Amino acid sequence: MAEQLSSPPARRWQAAWEPLLEIGRTGSGGYRRFAWTEEDRLLREWFAGEAAARGGEVVPDRAGNLWAWWGDPDAEPGVVLGSHLDSVPEGGAYDGPLGVVSALLAVESVGPLRKPVAVVCFADEEGARFGTACAGSRLLTGALAPDKALGLKDADGVTMAEARGDVPAADPEVLRRIDCFVELHVEQGRALEVPVGLATEIWPHGRWRFDLRGQANHAGTTRLEDRDDPVLAFASLALRARATAEDLGMLATFGKLQVSPNAVNAVPGEVRAWLDARAPSEQLLQRLLDDLGGSPQQESWTSAVRFDRALADRLSGCLSDVPRLPTGAGHDAGVLQEHGIPTAMLFVRNPTGISHAPEEHAELDDCLAGVAALEAVLRELAG
Amino acid sequence: MAEQLSSPPARRWQAAWEPLLEIGRTGSGGYRRFAWTEEDRLLREWFAGEAAARGGEVVPDRAGNLWAWWGDPDAEPGVVLGSHLDSVPEGGAYDGPLGVVSALLAVESVGPLRKPVAVVCFADEEGARFGTACAGSRLLTGALAPDKALGLKDADGVTMAEARGDVPAADPEVLRRIDCFVELHVEQGRALEVPVGLATEIWPHGRWRFDLRGQANHAGTTRLEDRDDPVLAFASLALRARATAEDLGMLATFGKLQVSPNAVNAVPGEVRAWLDARAPSEQLLQRLLDDLGGSPQQESWTSAVRFDRALADRLSGCLSDVPRLPTGAGHDAGVLQEHGIPTAMLFVRNPTGISHAPEEHAELDDCLAGVAALEAVLRELAG
Repeated sequence: MAEQLSSPPARRWQAAWEPLLEIGRTGSGGYRRFAWTEEDRLLREWFAGEAAARGGEVVPDRAGNLWAWWGDPDAEPGVVLGSHLDSVPEGGAYDGPLGVVSALLAVESVGPLRKPVAVVCFADEEGARFGTACAGSRLLTGALAPDKALGLKDADGVTMAEARGDVPAADPEVLRRIDCFVELHVEQGRALEVPVGLATEIWPHGRWRFDLRGQANHAGTTRLEDRDDPVLAFASLALRARATAEDLGMLATFGKLQVSPNAVNAVPGEVRAWLDARAPSEQLLQRLLDDLGGSPQQESWTSAVRFDRALADRLSGCLSDVPRLPTGAGHDAGVLQEHGIPTAMLFVRNPTGISHAPEEHAELDDCLAGVAALEAVLRELAG
Repeated sequence: MAEQLSSPPARRWQAAWEPLLEIGRTGSGGYRRFAWTEEDRLLREWFAGEAAARGGEVVPDRAGNLWAWWGDPDAEPGVVLGSHLDSVPEGGAYDGPLGVVSALLAVESVGPLRKPVAVVCFADEEGARFGTACAGSRLLTGALAPDKALGLKDADGVTMAEARGDVPAADPEVLRRIDCFVELHVEQGRALEVPVGLATEIWPHGRWRFDLRGQANHAGTTRLEDRDDPVLAFASLALRARATAEDLGMLATFGKLQVSPNAVNAVPGEVRAWLDARAPSEQLLQRLLDDLGGSPQQESWTSAVRFDRALADRLSGCLSDVPRLPTGAGHDAGVLQEHGIPTAMLFVRNPTGISHAPEEHAELDDCLAGVAALEAVLRELAG
């Protein structure tokens, strides 16, 4: 590692990476970088500066995403790299920024190419503030209607329109500039045992809200046999979801709960519990829901996305030994692929498998391997 | 019921009871009457008007409680009836106000007596706003230190000192005026099958906070076998607490939860869960805690309170067929008994057993039986 630190690629990496680590860091060492906040503004400013310093022309699109172009994409569609800069609450440093920094360094390394090249920062990928993931890419492609987006509210009741201060729109002009899109991202589990891998597909996934109603009552006087306690109903539901998910080889998570009235001395009257479930097939998701019963409200649904096979084959050809793997997480890459743009994703190994938390990490050597992979990809696709 | 409605006691009841039903009622038909709010001010104003109309002299004490006296308690200690007017969030109409209205009507009915008589409204009994139950009676007796009370904060960060606008103190002068205290209260379970019962004791009870720590992670990518999900730990804990409480013949409730970060797509990093447990003996409480394991933080503890045996015997003598029963709920009566003041509690039947919820109810006939019981008690103790 000491030798790596003194290598030119390592020094270039750290010069680009380290200024980012100061933006939006919380007391816990995690990051809070919500869309359209002061932190977000600083991140965009950082991006514009880094891209301009490497000779890129920085332009926002009408959806709110930020592009840096090398070459003229209106003459010929270009090869686009990039990711996002926003985070979940108490998120890690790598989810998003790894792809942006790696792309900037790869563009710098390979120098001028035959085709135009861009690095994009998609806006509001995590949806942590307004509850809608991939808002920037979905606005761009029209998958999210602007008037629906504008009314979304954050936890303080601020609308997206107020937070942005402008009116977003789909931007077909910008879409026409994209020949293909390659997003590099930190892997978010422990599925990757080598530095870099290639995504095959995004599992179908959805969110369902269970409203478990009971009878609010006094915790100090209501006999156990007279109770209808929704906390106990939730406890059984959560354990069953886990057991069934294990049986079926899929993921099921209750990550969010609302208890009413949520008072120490009251048997709650209601528990609302949100299930996040992802599986290799829609049939397996349906089997989990059938098994859990009740009448949950489906709050979101994303069908399986299979990345462009021909593009993946070209990437496999120019990269040595990249295993292919599916992922359960949604990405802007999935939104662009769904829109019909040939898209690929590269993953960089995550030694602990932790993501969306301060402990999220990638080793420097693996980050440099990711940059080298993007350099090869640029030469293959745009050289 | 039609005949009862036209009886003089029923008409007197309704004239006193119905104006109260307008104060602090929420959209759900429940009540939100937190201490030191505008609703609380209206309730105190209502009490002062009703007491003065019946010839009582209304005086606050230095702890914040409101008294109405008939006769001179500085010449001879008097018999005190009463309860409280504040509520839990989305509470019922009866918990507290039933005892105050019944006391006012009983004092009116029996007319002048040999000894002084009072009706008291204790402040902030539920502790719903500042988290400390029986704050008014505990300040009065010195069980709650004024400087500790003043720094308590509500959910908006307002301190009790700011909410009150004055500095409370213990008030030994006022305590010396109390010969004995009898609190009438709606029963809060289904333990009473006749209109009126007599409390023997308050079960020992406590609150414990379990901090269940896991590893925050991405819900869409973290393999089940790599997870440390505190929601599952909580689910097992809640089911075990219920099963053990059933076995031991006690009460155990998880009524309050905090999930971090509480995001749909994140495996939580921590669940905080508050256990409320009450039992016929401290040994049983300890057995539950031993069985649950972990290292919960004890946030409150109240030893068993046994009400004055001699006073209970006098009440039994003047009331016909009042069963004796324990309760799991804390009351101002318990605080006064703990301070050494001879204290008794009467319960009025609760047909559904629901309390601390909008459905809390007592039948009119049972309310009138409660007033008649207090009339007999006043004649016995002060006549």
